[in-house]
Amino acid sequence: MTYCVGIVLNDGLVCASDSRTNAGVDNIASFCKMTVFERPDDRVVILLSSGNLAGTQAVISMLRQRGEARDAKVGSVWNARTMFDVAVIVSDAVRDVERRDGERLAGSATPFSASFIIGGQIKGEPMRLFRTFAEGNFIEAGTDTPFFQTGEAKYGKPIIDRVITPSTTLSDAMKCVLVSFDSTMRSNLSVGMPIDLACYERDRLRLTVRHRFAQGDAYFSALSKEWSEGVRDVFRRLPAVPTGDEPSP
Amino acid sequence: MTYCVGIVLNDGLVCASDSRTNAGVDNIASFCKMTVFERPDDRVVILLSSGNLAGTQAVISMLRQRGEARDAKVGSVWNARTMFDVAVIVSDAVRDVERRDGERLAGSATPFSASFIIGGQIKGEPMRLFRTFAEGNFIEAGTDTPFFQTGEAKYGKPIIDRVITPSTTLSDAMKCVLVSFDSTMRSNLSVGMPIDLACYERDRLRLTVRHRFAQGDAYFSALSKEWSEGVRDVFRRLPAVPTGDEPSP
Repeated sequence: MTYCVGIVLNDGLVCASDSRTNAGVDNIASFCKMTVFERPDDRVVILLSSGNLAGTQAVISMLRQRGEARDAKVGSVWNARTMFDVAVIVSDAVRDVERRDGERLAGSATPFSASFIIGGQIKGEPMRLFRTFAEGNFIEAGTDTPFFQTGEAKYGKPIIDRVITPSTTLSDAMKCVLVSFDSTMRSNLSVGMPIDLACYERDRLRLTVRHRFAQGDAYFSALSKEWSEGVRDVFRRLPAVPTGDEPSP
Repeated sequence: MTYCVGIVLNDGLVCASDSRTNAGVDNIASFCKMTVFERPDDRVVILLSSGNLAGTQAVISMLRQRGEARDAKVGSVWNARTMFDVAVIVSDAVRDVERRDGERLAGSATPFSASFIIGGQIKGEPMRLFRTFAEGNFIEAGTDTPFFQTGEAKYGKPIIDRVITPSTTLSDAMKCVLVSFDSTMRSNLSVGMPIDLACYERDRLRLTVRHRFAQGDAYFSALSKEWSEGVRDVFRRLPAVPTGDEPSP
């Protein structure tokens, strides 16, 4: 499994991904699922990948190679004019890999799947956040739902639902994402540290924060402990269920 | 979807179920998923059902009819000697309904499925909690994992994981279950009120609490509001993510 979150706020973007991959619980490994394309003062594009590792790695390699071509006729993350064009370029790469591998994998236990959360900004263009599906089509986040999750989304969704609105600060959104990862990792062994976190401040055209939280990270451990104790404390102070009712048949 | 929870504690049992059923989001209805077999001073058996409504209703009707037979040769919830025997009787009924309907439904979009959480106590026997699967086999809760969830389990699991141990009080467990339902209903429209709650105090051999929380219930609304505000407050007090790190390429 995997857990990735991308949030678009008035102030900027916050993206995070876990790094656990597994082929069964007896075969786990660690791979970074966050890829950043950054050319300061021109563009920042953050990709978070979910799906079969062979598929997502192939897509990223293809995006890099097409970027290195430096041929204006080859659409790439580096020469795309808008974030919509970036999403189309990622989608095209997904479909190219699917064309190559899809049929061979169709009958296997793990058919081709690769989906991406794509956030970023290109100079002169608005900051945007997209989410592609395995089929290569994609949607864009808006003010009603300013975030996307991929992979094991459920355990960590309640805190995002409770906290995140477009006016949430970048600092609070980073904190919220880490709490969301804490809840997820507590319940699903197939999501694991390190956690890669990126934060982009609108119109800055360079990454503001990129940090990797490894197992035992002091801040993450403190956050996890304080959250756990705080939540238990709120729980203790909630009013007891009234039990005046007689049992009815 | 459905959401049911059963918890076995040193002090007793707490069971709860939502009551939403749906055949698509354009066709929702309300049906009670909790069934109680109670003969004061002799036995209390609580069943929580998940699966296709036709299947779970048929199982419950079969259990009731076999109970009404009052024929000692027909195994029933009323004449079972132990809670294990009750679980076997429920499992047999699941398999009987599956034998009748399973083949017809196998090719449909909603194949046969019926699973139950079964908690209770019979005079002279220990209090126990089981969970059956669609195939009719079943497992029993223990001190390591003193609860079962069926249906939409994920959104509401973190709070149960954080709060419930075998020594949790019945009052706290009821409160915890309601918070768990609140988180679930917030994120999944296919789980809905009313919520049926039952609480059984060990060795009492009669139900201690049975209450239905309908939409707009004053206690549930207050709980939901205080929980939401409390959790947001804990979140606000968490330390901010340190951002001293320079962005790395």
